[in-house]
Amino acid sequence: MTSLRFVFLFLLISFSASAQKDYKLWLQYNSVTNSAVASEYKNNLKGIVVLGNSETIKIAEKELKTGFLDMLGSIPEIKQNIEGENNLIVGSQLDLSTEIKSELKADFEKINNEGFIIKSISLQKKKQIVISGKNDIAVLYGVFNFLRILQTNKSVKNLNIVDSPKTNIRILNHWDNLDRTVERGYAGFSLWNWQKLPDFIDQRYIDYARANASIGINGTVLTNVNANALILTPQYLEKVEALANVFRPYGIKVYLTARFSAPIEIGNLKTADPKDPEVINWWKTKSAEIYKRIPDFGGFLVKANSEGQPGPQNYGRNHVDGANMLADAVAPFGGVIMWRAFVYSEHDANDRAKQAYAEFQPYDGKFKENVIVQVKNGAIDFQPREPFHPLFGAMPKTPLMMEFQITQEYLGFSTHLVFLPKLFQEVLESDTHQKGKGSTVAKVVDGTLYQNKLTGIAGVANIGNDLNWTGHPFAQANWYGFGRLAWNPYLDSEIIAEEWLRSTFSNDENFIKPVKNIMIESREAVVNYMTPLGLHHIMDTGHHYGPGPWVSNLSRPEWNPTYYHKADKNGIGFDRSKSGTNAVSQYAPEVAKLFDNLETCPEKDLLWFHHVSWDYKLKNGQTLWNGLALKYQEGVNQVREMQNVWNKAEKYVDSERFNEVKMLLEIQLKEAKWWRDACLLYFQQFSGKELPAGVEKSTQTLEYFKSLKFPFAPGNG
Amino acid sequence: MTSLRFVFLFLLISFSASAQKDYKLWLQYNSVTNSAVASEYKNNLKGIVVLGNSETIKIAEKELKTGFLDMLGSIPEIKQNIEGENNLIVGSQLDLSTEIKSELKADFEKINNEGFIIKSISLQKKKQIVISGKNDIAVLYGVFNFLRILQTNKSVKNLNIVDSPKTNIRILNHWDNLDRTVERGYAGFSLWNWQKLPDFIDQRYIDYARANASIGINGTVLTNVNANALILTPQYLEKVEALANVFRPYGIKVYLTARFSAPIEIGNLKTADPKDPEVINWWKTKSAEIYKRIPDFGGFLVKANSEGQPGPQNYGRNHVDGANMLADAVAPFGGVIMWRAFVYSEHDANDRAKQAYAEFQPYDGKFKENVIVQVKNGAIDFQPREPFHPLFGAMPKTPLMMEFQITQEYLGFSTHLVFLPKLFQEVLESDTHQKGKGSTVAKVVDGTLYQNKLTGIAGVANIGNDLNWTGHPFAQANWYGFGRLAWNPYLDSEIIAEEWLRSTFSNDENFIKPVKNIMIESREAVVNYMTPLGLHHIMDTGHHYGPGPWVSNLSRPEWNPTYYHKADKNGIGFDRSKSGTNAVSQYAPEVAKLFDNLETCPEKDLLWFHHVSWDYKLKNGQTLWNGLALKYQEGVNQVREMQNVWNKAEKYVDSERFNEVKMLLEIQLKEAKWWRDACLLYFQQFSGKELPAGVEKSTQTLEYFKSLKFPFAPGNG
Repeated sequence: MTSLRFVFLFLLISFSASAQKDYKLWLQYNSVTNSAVASEYKNNLKGIVVLGNSETIKIAEKELKTGFLDMLGSIPEIKQNIEGENNLIVGSQLDLSTEIKSELKADFEKINNEGFIIKSISLQKKKQIVISGKNDIAVLYGVFNFLRILQTNKSVKNLNIVDSPKTNIRILNHWDNLDRTVERGYAGFSLWNWQKLPDFIDQRYIDYARANASIGINGTVLTNVNANALILTPQYLEKVEALANVFRPYGIKVYLTARFSAPIEIGNLKTADPKDPEVINWWKTKSAEIYKRIPDFGGFLVKANSEGQPGPQNYGRNHVDGANMLADAVAPFGGVIMWRAFVYSEHDANDRAKQAYAEFQPYDGKFKENVIVQVKNGAIDFQPREPFHPLFGAMPKTPLMMEFQITQEYLGFSTHLVFLPKLFQEVLESDTHQKGKGSTVAKVVDGTLYQNKLTGIAGVANIGNDLNWTGHPFAQANWYGFGRLAWNPYLDSEIIAEEWLRSTFSNDENFIKPVKNIMIESREAVVNYMTPLGLHHIMDTGHHYGPGPWVSNLSRPEWNPTYYHKADKNGIGFDRSKSGTNAVSQYAPEVAKLFDNLETCPEKDLLWFHHVSWDYKLKNGQTLWNGLALKYQEGVNQVREMQNVWNKAEKYVDSERFNEVKMLLEIQLKEAKWWRDACLLYFQQFSGKELPAGVEKSTQTLEYFKSLKFPFAPGNG
Repeated sequence: MTSLRFVFLFLLISFSASAQKDYKLWLQYNSVTNSAVASEYKNNLKGIVVLGNSETIKIAEKELKTGFLDMLGSIPEIKQNIEGENNLIVGSQLDLSTEIKSELKADFEKINNEGFIIKSISLQKKKQIVISGKNDIAVLYGVFNFLRILQTNKSVKNLNIVDSPKTNIRILNHWDNLDRTVERGYAGFSLWNWQKLPDFIDQRYIDYARANASIGINGTVLTNVNANALILTPQYLEKVEALANVFRPYGIKVYLTARFSAPIEIGNLKTADPKDPEVINWWKTKSAEIYKRIPDFGGFLVKANSEGQPGPQNYGRNHVDGANMLADAVAPFGGVIMWRAFVYSEHDANDRAKQAYAEFQPYDGKFKENVIVQVKNGAIDFQPREPFHPLFGAMPKTPLMMEFQITQEYLGFSTHLVFLPKLFQEVLESDTHQKGKGSTVAKVVDGTLYQNKLTGIAGVANIGNDLNWTGHPFAQANWYGFGRLAWNPYLDSEIIAEEWLRSTFSNDENFIKPVKNIMIESREAVVNYMTPLGLHHIMDTGHHYGPGPWVSNLSRPEWNPTYYHKADKNGIGFDRSKSGTNAVSQYAPEVAKLFDNLETCPEKDLLWFHHVSWDYKLKNGQTLWNGLALKYQEGVNQVREMQNVWNKAEKYVDSERFNEVKMLLEIQLKEAKWWRDACLLYFQQFSGKELPAGVEKSTQTLEYFKSLKFPFAPGNG
């Protein structure tokens, strides 16, 4: 057998190690090479007792076996009953013996339905470890968490973990079209092979579910928010049902986007007016049809009256009318409506940043119980940095769901290493002051600030059919980190980075420390080389690839970068202070005051809120122009440092992933320079000033940068 | 180490065995489990001596090491010099010792530049095996061929293989667009990630090159014949260059499609007239620019004045003018022009099947030396069965290149198991009689019939970014088989099937025999359940998915299925006899006579050439209607038999590929029934007859089948 084994091992390395390793995400289950740690694991884990026999429990058992075999080279004895000591006992509360249940009584009181317990206990004076929860899905979460302990080489002695997810809906939003193109997708095309569904179940569906379950994601919206009504026809629902069947044992519910005009397009009605009885009935019947196929269908995500999508306003109704009508349709089946607050109108001359708040805040308290309003993290659109969205904390009677973007629409596509949990954390930690100091966005999102029952976090997926799922090996960390933060919005992004690195690459401290550092720095790097000091939305238009601060010819003013930076001879920045659009007034008074005052406004948000003179003195004593230029240069320098660190990581990483990241960092450096040079040459026209010392000069002209065209940049929606 | 190895082995099976095994194509290098065979290999292969150090030779050496390690568990000693006996000596003629060269003198005289020698020789009374050729690429071909001997468990005693490819250009045509959609692609999307090129070299590019080299494919057209001029701009040529650099050491030349109107679209000229001096100069300059980047650039493939593509006729010129102008542009660099003969006009009321011949045959002898005319295997368009194209043999002074379609546009996409080499062989074996009996299509294609110097076979690729490259595990066999037939158009498809099965799955005879049988039968099965007895082009329109014999509303008459089957109360079939369109007259007299006479016309081509009464008596005594119905039923039965055989193959195949094929056969059965039922219900309207005994009745109505719509069927061009 040995030679046979060796055969496979070698192939792994010689032919498609990349496919293999990249594909496995953070579930590498690398062999535990630290012998002390391995011994501890073997000594404390002599047997496995699995209670229950649902599909979910079988998945948990298989996962444990895989994990043990891969990490320790052997599987502890599988026992039918608890005999001897040092057993791992795995099962839901219902399946536990009375003795264990009473042992864990206090712990069970602490967890919710999805929470789990991992605990070292003594049963008849024998040491055992129990993994349990109130149902089998919770047990599966516990198993993945336990395996993570092994993956990160932590001790299994005296375990006492009692953990519950802090939000109800932890969900990926796939902006996937029925033709398998993905809007803002940079990792190939959609995973969902509609042509071969329902009869062909791609192995990837299973591996996708497994990866999500391992980080606690419990929902997936299969289709683009710019929706196609055909997904709601029997022809497609049969396919959706097949996916739901695959995902169910992994605790993942399927959701769909509902095109508001579907009653017209596929229902042969003349209207989609949410007050029309036929329309109301159509959605009720359609919902019943869906729930008949998929009894645990999650519900609908809706983008209405936004960027050309139809909605209730087409009929003189408002968002509340639309959302509540749909909410009534799914309520009998326990479904929810996730209604997006991402609205702005080309007919509204008001600052785009103010429009969602202006539209939605007055609706507070008017939505049905099973509606949750999905709000992007910032008021514009997933920029490298935005101040938190003013709606957070401003609608106490309405559940608000966070919408993060995992796919890097505005952050370098899948060629830039940018660790997004750092961005997510910054938003979640922001203090809205809406209910006094400490009213953080996280508390709004997890419902603790206003005691909302329905809570959730959505992430626009960065997943495609690339061999490595996400295009960039490090973009896997953003999927991972999103899931971890959706489970617990208070987690520190450094901890997430470290968990991910250990599970994905290596437990070697000489690798972890420097590479973790570049991950943590990477978000600030992209801000620096793209949009420092509060600049935003100066990407080239449509595809959003590369710099385009000069673009000013689009029909909708708020799609033009010039709308956002407002550079002129006097300075640069969007005046949202009281003397400007007064967008600051949408925040709580303490926050509004902070942002409104040029002196107290954080410099990272300076040009978001203020139009500032080129000669304005920054806190470090530099003029704004010099400071801006130095920030751009700093971004480039940070990428160079990322390269230095990565080059030293070669010995800890397989050669293919090492080379992939190396090539990608080369592209990132090239594009960071492109951003720096194009933006500084463009803004220099207004500032009329020389570049300060330390800032490298462009080798190309502004005209060259303006001439670049990318008609086939991916993900253009 | 053992436990570590075991870790990897298990992961392979537990997490993504499918990804891994499917991805590896026919280069599985499975362990040789027959111990007698393994011993023979080990005894006869004690050392390896590699001569030369080009990139290609290094690839050959690495391949040998991988193959030995995987198949035998160890690598023979790598030696610097030939010491002892039973060495494998690998190197090109130039690098061989005088003694070996003289030993192989006669063999070297037999091979061409790409041919190889694998020979057991005696050197100073010591047994050795030599793999050689006139250059390093030929050596690489020899190495892959040698590894195939091991993969198929054949003896390595007394080797004496002297083999050369019979055609010059063995090339894949990728109908890949710059947005990564693939026209007629059913295996995901384009491999070419233009966004990340040139700086990011996806591992798949390397694995693609390796797979092609292993079967002797030496060219690839990267872009769709429905071409985009942007591929010829520096922005894209830089990316093409990067791919060419990857492919070069594998012996693969890069070609591009040339959009005829490129001088206007990207050259700022007012015309693309091939006689215009500015246009002529533009193409010369463009060619020089390309060859500066890619000195071994292969040349251009052109679809002109066909299905809306621009061409010389837009300027009152003809195909010769267009092709020769481009030929002059690439001639100084050794490039070739592959000019497609696939033309038909909506303004020509003539039988579509006659138009390519009518247009091109008169041009015989008028093309420049470096032009090769690329002709589809049949006169219509890649149907499940077509008589050979009448141009073959009819242009003695013009090199004609075969164009096969590997992607299954009209043969069930990537969900139907159809082994295409059987189809290819049928075409290649067809006797054109143009230079007397035995003037087979193969002899036209390999140039031996008319002593053409330039020869080639093109295959429209079925490759995409699916994990398994081709969508269906068995579709890999069509890529493989195409390559083998391009190398040697006289190879028997059964031998190809067996080679492929052994290399891809197992050498177990109990597996090989039945599964080979279903592969061989599979092509006739698809003909039976789609288009028996010479029917053709009755697929639903646009996407060509499923039956659509009723479609008659398209603007171009020859795009309507009704144009092709002409069913009416009197009978069915397209009368191409002398009393009809006289398409038969385009063949040599012997062939024309055969096809023209209802009595001698092969029944497999009956309705291609004749409009036949429903009561016509077939050779088996059945009426045409009954015979047709029974053929449809036979197709369905054949798929059931494929299922029976496959279900018994479970123990020889990994579970994931087993299940994939099982699910796909289920779809194939469902669709075979759909074809049978829809076509018979439709034709029954005309025949007015009952189904004969043995033919299952449809459970759906014709109206139901007509109502089916597939707006997102893949590959729609």
